[in-house]
Amino acid sequence: MIRIPFAQLEQTFTKVLLQLNFPEKRAALCAHIFAANSRDGVHSHGLNRFPVFVQYVKDGLVRPDAEPALLEKNGCLETWTGNLGPGMYNATVCMQRAIELAKENGIGCVTIQNTNHWMRGGTYGWQAANAGCIGICFTNAIAGMPAWGGITPALGNNPLVIAVPRPQGHVVLDMAMSQFSYGKMQEHELKKEVLPVVGGYDDNGRLTTDPAVIRHNKRALPIGFWKGSGLAMVLDVLLVALSGGRSTAQITADKKEFGVSQCFISLYKPDLHAALIEAILQYTRNGASAVAGGRISYPGENTLRNRLQSEQEGVAVNEEMWAQVQGMVV
Amino acid sequence: MIRIPFAQLEQTFTKVLLQLNFPEKRAALCAHIFAANSRDGVHSHGLNRFPVFVQYVKDGLVRPDAEPALLEKNGCLETWTGNLGPGMYNATVCMQRAIELAKENGIGCVTIQNTNHWMRGGTYGWQAANAGCIGICFTNAIAGMPAWGGITPALGNNPLVIAVPRPQGHVVLDMAMSQFSYGKMQEHELKKEVLPVVGGYDDNGRLTTDPAVIRHNKRALPIGFWKGSGLAMVLDVLLVALSGGRSTAQITADKKEFGVSQCFISLYKPDLHAALIEAILQYTRNGASAVAGGRISYPGENTLRNRLQSEQEGVAVNEEMWAQVQGMVV
Repeated sequence: MIRIPFAQLEQTFTKVLLQLNFPEKRAALCAHIFAANSRDGVHSHGLNRFPVFVQYVKDGLVRPDAEPALLEKNGCLETWTGNLGPGMYNATVCMQRAIELAKENGIGCVTIQNTNHWMRGGTYGWQAANAGCIGICFTNAIAGMPAWGGITPALGNNPLVIAVPRPQGHVVLDMAMSQFSYGKMQEHELKKEVLPVVGGYDDNGRLTTDPAVIRHNKRALPIGFWKGSGLAMVLDVLLVALSGGRSTAQITADKKEFGVSQCFISLYKPDLHAALIEAILQYTRNGASAVAGGRISYPGENTLRNRLQSEQEGVAVNEEMWAQVQGMVV
Repeated sequence: MIRIPFAQLEQTFTKVLLQLNFPEKRAALCAHIFAANSRDGVHSHGLNRFPVFVQYVKDGLVRPDAEPALLEKNGCLETWTGNLGPGMYNATVCMQRAIELAKENGIGCVTIQNTNHWMRGGTYGWQAANAGCIGICFTNAIAGMPAWGGITPALGNNPLVIAVPRPQGHVVLDMAMSQFSYGKMQEHELKKEVLPVVGGYDDNGRLTTDPAVIRHNKRALPIGFWKGSGLAMVLDVLLVALSGGRSTAQITADKKEFGVSQCFISLYKPDLHAALIEAILQYTRNGASAVAGGRISYPGENTLRNRLQSEQEGVAVNEEMWAQVQGMVV
């Protein structure tokens, strides 16, 4: 790991996206999101994911200049199509539209079909919270874990994001439905570590903390066993019911993760009771800690800590990945 | 367990509630919900909970004739107070109002402060789905499990309900944030069984499947460890931000679970893509099963199976509980 200035990371991404015929503003937006994901410590959806994204663009799965379009309006509930444009751009447009609807009507919901991977879901939670709104969003994904009772992957990781604005740092939950992402399991495997808690089943159906076994047999564990399985399934049902877009089943059939379905909800009230929110965080933090000197965090707290550190010391990047992406600039 | 006719259960509850000065229609509604919870197999919030509810009414914590009232309207987002009325009644009124807002505007949200325990959250998901709407609702609760990293209870079980209408049987997820409820752990303990998966920590901070240990030290496990802990906390934050009502911290300080905060969201579109939903359920079900002859269910499927069985054979009730409640009728 080395640390580099945020602006340098952002500029390099921008140059590569412009080479790929991204319109100027859109290149800047997408570059900013990739750089911000690394800055906030979500390397898997920042620099480390950038080469995969570039390949998707080159393969025609992500269309650099496609514009999202409104398909159907039912009051404060809108259905859009992403026309297979860049997921980060489409998601930003949709959350912005949900925020506008919320500011006019208290609540707004925008669902989108035929969009692409939004990288870090939390990005759009922060977007809503920065606008003074509550933001809730979720996406479906290619199948990565079996449903409860099954052994073959049938459920997407279908992240759920819930963000509530807070002057001292927004509360932002960004939660996928598997106990560990495959990226996280790979990290542990490379370091020859077992997982801190069970993360899936071995080939005999026993719970295991061995990341290599789970990465091989794809029997990753949903959070809370049957509960996360049900939540992942119902989010997919919700997305398809609202957007008319593709389900995890259809995305999986194509083998490549494109053309996903997403939902963005925003809520707005002039007074979101900041003092009551503080009391919750204080109460939780004041409890006795499980380990000496341990600390109980609220969702979003680590993100903010990473961000502040990156702003002071530069963004931590993997040297090889950074060299690879720098090498893309012609 | 014996089986009795649904109508008999409902009538008995109605009589007791009328004795407690419930207005007639409200007695009928609350009695129906208690009976339906038993009918659907959720005994812990049906017959078995009824005596506790009666005691709450007698103690003045639930006010039989209080009417919920609108406090603030921001377009399709409304804030109500429950005035400490019966939670099932208030929740029904709020979901009905959210449904009305959704049918007019595509989406509606009603939050309520100072209400009471809604018994089974799924009730209000079924209510929305029966009206052809998507329903999403959640509540906070008295602290029952530690936050991730903590050892003293600081989080409510804060159930989350998501319902999507489906002609052949609605998809209804009704999920609390702990791996097992204390009621479920008690059932296992009484049968001298260990839990099927880990459900909390022992006094040395090791994961355990011993229900007696967890019931004693209150170190119940959130689903997905840090993930369910974050989700439970953020639902409480959302509830308080929107309703201005009491948080888990405040409810817990009073030792008795009353005056909780809830949120009801409904969405409506003329076409909810029933065929696409069927394809998801089919895809999930068709996967290979982990155990021979095993079956992969969708959320809500077991509820419907229990309901049909109860309608054919009568509602299963615990004989002692049934005798106790029958004894309440003067």
